[in-house]
Amino acid sequence: MIIVLKPGIAKKEERAVLQEIRKLGYVPHVMRGVARTVIGAIGDERTHQSLETLVTWAQVESVTPIQKRYKLVSREAHPANSTIQVRGHVIGGKKFHVMAGPCSVESERQLLQTAEAVKAAGATVLRGGAFKPRTSPYEFQGLGEKGLKLLAKARRATGLAIITELLSEQHADMVAEYTDIIQIGARNAQNFQLLVAAARTGKPILLKRGLSMKIEEWLLAGEYVLANENPNLLFCERGIRTFETYTRNTLDLAAIPIIKQESHLPIVIDPSQGAGRSDLVIALCKGAVAMGADALLIEVHPNPAEAWSDGAQQVSLEVFPKLMQELRPLIAAAGRE
Amino acid sequence: MIIVLKPGIAKKEERAVLQEIRKLGYVPHVMRGVARTVIGAIGDERTHQSLETLVTWAQVESVTPIQKRYKLVSREAHPANSTIQVRGHVIGGKKFHVMAGPCSVESERQLLQTAEAVKAAGATVLRGGAFKPRTSPYEFQGLGEKGLKLLAKARRATGLAIITELLSEQHADMVAEYTDIIQIGARNAQNFQLLVAAARTGKPILLKRGLSMKIEEWLLAGEYVLANENPNLLFCERGIRTFETYTRNTLDLAAIPIIKQESHLPIVIDPSQGAGRSDLVIALCKGAVAMGADALLIEVHPNPAEAWSDGAQQVSLEVFPKLMQELRPLIAAAGRE
Amino acid sequence: MIIVLKPGIAKKEERAVLQEIRKLGYVPHVMRGVARTVIGAIGDERTHQSLETLVTWAQVESVTPIQKRYKLVSREAHPANSTIQVRGHVIGGKKFHVMAGPCSVESERQLLQTAEAVKAAGATVLRGGAFKPRTSPYEFQGLGEKGLKLLAKARRATGLAIITELLSEQHADMVAEYTDIIQIGARNAQNFQLLVAAARTGKPILLKRGLSMKIEEWLLAGEYVLANENPNLLFCERGIRTFETYTRNTLDLAAIPIIKQESHLPIVIDPSQGAGRSDLVIALCKGAVAMGADALLIEVHPNPAEAWSDGAQQVSLEVFPKLMQELRPLIAAAGRE
Amino acid sequence: MIIVLKPGIAKKEERAVLQEIRKLGYVPHVMRGVARTVIGAIGDERTHQSLETLVTWAQVESVTPIQKRYKLVSREAHPANSTIQVRGHVIGGKKFHVMAGPCSVESERQLLQTAEAVKAAGATVLRGGAFKPRTSPYEFQGLGEKGLKLLAKARRATGLAIITELLSEQHADMVAEYTDIIQIGARNAQNFQLLVAAARTGKPILLKRGLSMKIEEWLLAGEYVLANENPNLLFCERGIRTFETYTRNTLDLAAIPIIKQESHLPIVIDPSQGAGRSDLVIALCKGAVAMGADALLIEVHPNPAEAWSDGAQQVSLEVFPKLMQELRPLIAAAGRE
Repeated sequence: MIIVLKPGIAKKEERAVLQEIRKLGYVPHVMRGVARTVIGAIGDERTHQSLETLVTWAQVESVTPIQKRYKLVSREAHPANSTIQVRGHVIGGKKFHVMAGPCSVESERQLLQTAEAVKAAGATVLRGGAFKPRTSPYEFQGLGEKGLKLLAKARRATGLAIITELLSEQHADMVAEYTDIIQIGARNAQNFQLLVAAARTGKPILLKRGLSMKIEEWLLAGEYVLANENPNLLFCERGIRTFETYTRNTLDLAAIPIIKQESHLPIVIDPSQGAGRSDLVIALCKGAVAMGADALLIEVHPNPAEAWSDGAQQVSLEVFPKLMQELRPLIAAAGRE
Repeated sequence: MIIVLKPGIAKKEERAVLQEIRKLGYVPHVMRGVARTVIGAIGDERTHQSLETLVTWAQVESVTPIQKRYKLVSREAHPANSTIQVRGHVIGGKKFHVMAGPCSVESERQLLQTAEAVKAAGATVLRGGAFKPRTSPYEFQGLGEKGLKLLAKARRATGLAIITELLSEQHADMVAEYTDIIQIGARNAQNFQLLVAAARTGKPILLKRGLSMKIEEWLLAGEYVLANENPNLLFCERGIRTFETYTRNTLDLAAIPIIKQESHLPIVIDPSQGAGRSDLVIALCKGAVAMGADALLIEVHPNPAEAWSDGAQQVSLEVFPKLMQELRPLIAAAGRE
Repeated sequence: MIIVLKPGIAKKEERAVLQEIRKLGYVPHVMRGVARTVIGAIGDERTHQSLETLVTWAQVESVTPIQKRYKLVSREAHPANSTIQVRGHVIGGKKFHVMAGPCSVESERQLLQTAEAVKAAGATVLRGGAFKPRTSPYEFQGLGEKGLKLLAKARRATGLAIITELLSEQHADMVAEYTDIIQIGARNAQNFQLLVAAARTGKPILLKRGLSMKIEEWLLAGEYVLANENPNLLFCERGIRTFETYTRNTLDLAAIPIIKQESHLPIVIDPSQGAGRSDLVIALCKGAVAMGADALLIEVHPNPAEAWSDGAQQVSLEVFPKLMQELRPLIAAAGRE
Repeated sequence: MIIVLKPGIAKKEERAVLQEIRKLGYVPHVMRGVARTVIGAIGDERTHQSLETLVTWAQVESVTPIQKRYKLVSREAHPANSTIQVRGHVIGGKKFHVMAGPCSVESERQLLQTAEAVKAAGATVLRGGAFKPRTSPYEFQGLGEKGLKLLAKARRATGLAIITELLSEQHADMVAEYTDIIQIGARNAQNFQLLVAAARTGKPILLKRGLSMKIEEWLLAGEYVLANENPNLLFCERGIRTFETYTRNTLDLAAIPIIKQESHLPIVIDPSQGAGRSDLVIALCKGAVAMGADALLIEVHPNPAEAWSDGAQQVSLEVFPKLMQELRPLIAAAGRE
C-alpha cells in the first residue's frame, strides 16, 4: 500500500498514521518528496486488513494498493494457457470453437432444427436458454426443466455439447445434470452465491462479464469459481453498457488481449448480446477471431422475427453457414484450426 | 408499436411487414410521410408478443414501443403516494426518515454502540450487513446468522427497526425472521429469483438501483416485487457507474423527481455508496432532502479506519449527529418533519 | 511518482529503471515489499518530464503520480473562497445568484419579454446564446452579432448583467465587447485555444464541464484560464453523459462539494442542460442550492414549444417565478441570501 | 415525427397539439391505439422546425423523429463507397493503408528516423503532432510551425504523405500549406467552427470520434465538412470513454461495420489512443483489419519511454515492423492488399 499524506500536516498527525499502519500489521517506510510525504506500507495486502480506509483520515490524501487482488485466475499463478475439456473437445487450445443456438429453447422442432443446422455448419456446442432472466416479469421466462430435457434430446440427436444458463442456486444440481457447460449471465456476474453454487457442481463455468464490470472485478468474480475448487472457467465478453445507443451494448474486444495477458483461462466472445443487432454479428465475429478469442457464442434462430426473446440479435439458419464460411480464412490467419 | 420502413422498398416487402404485424395480433395502420413510410401497430404491447424483432428484417429501419412496460409500480396505476409501514413508522409520508448503521455487523459492541448513537441523533432504522457481497472471495463475507442475531439484539435494546441485505434465495426465510426491511443490493438488482424470493416473505423490500441500471429497468425490477403480491417496495438510489473516478459512483439525484413522477412508491437515497467517500456524505444528504427523498440510508461506524468493509465511506459517531443537525433546516424547508 | 516493478525481474532490469529515473531528473528511493518492489521517484512532477511512460517497459507494472496537476485553481494554492465581480454583483459570496434567459436569442421581443420576467422574479444575470453550437449543420446557428446587440439592449433596459457563449477564437474580442461573462460550452471545454482567447479578454469566464470530463480534467482546463492571467473563473456543472436515457445527461451534483474542496473558485449549476427536461428543473435547482452551489443557470423561454433550440428543457415565464419562490426557503436554509 | 399523447387527456388538449403541429408546417395523422393515442406528423423534418419541443406540453408523453438527420455523409445519399486521394494513394479502396509516426514531432532526428522506419515497414502516411492539445497547460504543447516544417522535410526525404492535427481556426491555412490530411482531434470533434475552417481549406479531413460522441453525432459532425463543400472526409474511431480503467479508452470496433452501413466514407482506426497502452496495439490492429477498416493510425516512437507526450501508447521502431508483418495474413484474409 502507498499512503500519500496531505502537504503541511503536523508531525503528530504523521505519527498517528504510522502507528495505525503498524497496528494493522504492516511495516511503514517513509519517503519525503518535494511536495508530499509518501509512506510505503510493507506487508501482504491479501492477508492483512486493507489500509484503504485510512483515506478517511484528515491528514491522508490517497491510499493506493500495489498488489493484484486476484490470484488463482492470474497468469502470474499459472503461466501456461489452461484448457477446458467438454465432451472430447478442448476449448482454449489450437482448435477454435463455435457455440451456437437459439436465445431461448422454445420447442423441440425449433431446437432440433437449429441444432442440426449449426452442427452442419461446424459448431461444436449448442446454446439455448431454459431459464431466462427477463427485464420485465411479463416476458417469457423460459421453459424450465422441460427446456433442459429438450437440450439433452438435441445432444443425443446431434452429438453437440450443451451450454445453458443457470439462474438460481436452487437449480444448480438440476441444470448440472443436463448441461455440459453452465453459463452465468451478465446480470448475475456478481451474484457470488450463484457462482459458488455453480462452481460446486464441478461443471465448466462460462462467466459473462457484467454490464458495468471492470476487468478486475470480472477476474475476481472468476476467482470465486477457482477458489471453490473448480478450475474449469471460461470468461465471456458480451458487451458493456455505455452511452452509445446505436448498439445495445459496446463489445469490448480489447478484453481478449487483456484476459490473455492477465489470466491463463480461455476467452469467449458473444457478439449477439454484444451488438444486439444481427447485422453486426459477422463483423464482430471476424474481429474476435483475429484478436485471439478461443471461441464464439452466437445466437441462431430459424425465424428471428418470431423468436420469443431477443429476436433482433439472432441470425437466421441461412446466414449462419455463410458466417462460418467467412470466418474460415481469418481462423487460419490467426493460426487456429 | 411504431415501425419505420426503409426508404425506397418494394410494395411486396411492405406487404410482408403488414402481414407479419397482423399475424402477431396487431392491427397495422399505414402513414406515408415525406421520406419514410411509418406503420402504427395497434394492440396491447404487454399482452401480445413484441414486434421489436421486426427490426431484423431488411426492409425495416426501426421499431419503437409506445407503451410503458411497467404497470403496478407506475404512478398511472396508482396516482396517490404509497407508504410503507415499519414497526409503527410510516415511510413515504410526511415524516422524513434516516436509516443508519455500519456497513457490516462486526461485533456486539460495535453494533450496539452505533445503534445507540444513531438513535440518539434521530435515526429510526438501524442498518447493518450480516451477509456481505464482496468483490473478492478473500474479503470478509459477513457474520451470517450471528450478525442477524446481533441486529435483533440491537433492536430489542434500542427499539430501532432493522434493515439488512439478503444475498441468497436460500436465506430468504431466515433473514425475514430477523429483519424489518429486506435490502436487495445493487449487484443483485436484476437477480429476479432473489427478488421473487424476497417478495414472497411479505416483508418490505428496499431495492437498490444496479450500477448500470436504467430507470426503466429499475422500475421493471420493482414490478417483479409487486407482481409477486408484495406491495411494500422502496426504491433506493445509490449511485451509478460512470467514467468519473473522483467518486466511487455518480449519485443520480435526478432519480428522486423521476421516481416520484413515474411511480407511487417511496424513494430512499444512499449517499455513502453513492460517493464512496465520507467527506461528501453531508452535502449529498442535503441535496437528497431538498429534492424530495423520503429517507436516507447512511453508513456510520465507531471507527471507520478499522471497519471490516468500506471504511472510506462510513461517517463516524462524532460526525453523524452533526450531519443530522445540519439536515434539520432543510427537512423543514422541504416541508417534511 | 510511484513506480511498481513486476515480480521476479532481474537485478539488471531494476537498475535500468533506476538509471532512467535519475536521467529524467528524479531521485529514486527503493522499497522492497512482500510481493513487489516499489520505487518512489522524488522530484517535482510539474517541472520534470513525466515518468508515466516508464509503464511501457516490460519490467514495470504501474506508474502512479502523487502530485495534483492543477495549481492556480487549487484550494491548496488559495485557501479562501474567491469571488467574481460582475456589474456590482459578487458571485461566490454570501448572496446566491440566478442567471436565466432563453437558450437562443431569437428576437428583440422574445429577449426583452424574458429579461423583464426573470428580473422581476429575482434573477441578476441574463443568459442568451447568440452563437449556437448545433449537432447538425442544418439547425439554427444563432443570430450572431445581431444577437449580441439585442443582449446589450436588454441589459440597458433591465440592468441585468449578460452571459453569452463564445464559439470561435476569432469572435473573442467582439463577444467580450458586449457581454459581462463569457460562457465556454461543454463541447469546447477542452478547446484550449478558445479558452486562452477567452481568458485574454479579461472578462469573467464560465467554464462548463465537458460531457465526459473528469473533475481533474475540468480543473486543468480551468488552469488554462488562470495561467493566462485571468483569475475570474466560474465552474459550471451541466450534466455528464452516461448510459441513462430518461434524462439527456446525468447532473453530477456531487461536483458542488468536490469543487468546493479542490478549488477556491465559485460553482454554478445548469439544471436545464443537466436534465434536458423542464419538468425536472425545479427539483434539481433545489438540490443545487442545498448542496452549496453559488449560482444557477436556467433556461427560460416565453413559449418553450416554439423555441428555436432545446425547447424541451426551457421553463416558461409562468413557471420561473414559481421556481424562484420555491427556492427561497432552501436558500435561507443553506445560509445564503 | 411521432407524437405519443398521455393516456386519458381531454379532446381539447389533443386539439391543441394538432393545431401546433399544423402551425409548424406538418400534416398530423391520428392513430388511436389500445392504451395511447399516437400522432404521425408528416413533413420534412430537416426543413421544418423540430417538433421535439412538444414534449414539454403536459399532454404529450414522447416525441420521436423518424428521419435520419445526416444527409451528405449517408449511404442513402451515395450508395457506392467513396475514396480519398492522397499523393497518389487511394484510401477507402482495395488497398489497406497504415499511417504511422510519433505522437508529437520532437526533433528532426526523431522524426526522420521514425519516418524512414515506418516507410520501410510499409506505411504510406506519416503522422506527427505539431500542435498538441494537452490536458494541462504545463505540458508540452507542440513545436508549432517548426514541427510542420519538419514534417514537410520528412515528406521530401521519404515520399510519405503527411497527416497532422489542426487545433485553431487561425492556423487552418498554415497547416493546410504543409499537410496532406488535416486531423481533427477527439476533443475538437464538435468544435464546429474548426471543422468548417478545416473543410474550407479543401484538404482531406480525418475526423476523430469524440470521447463521448454517439455515432449519430459523429456523422453529423462529418456533415459539417461535406456541407461546406469538402467531400474528402475520413472517420477515425479512437476509443470512447467508459467506466473501464484498465485501458485509457474503450475502442469501439463495432464502429467499423456501422460506419460502413450508414455512410459511404472510409473508416480509420487509431488503436494507440484507443487503448492507451502499446501492449494492446497489435491485437487491436488485427481486429480492425479483420472487421473491414480502411486504414490504421498508429503511434510509433524511437524511444517511447522518453517521448514528450503519451509515451505509454507508442510502439517502438523494433515492434512496428513485427506488427506490420503480423497484419499481412489478416489483410489478405480480409480481401485487401
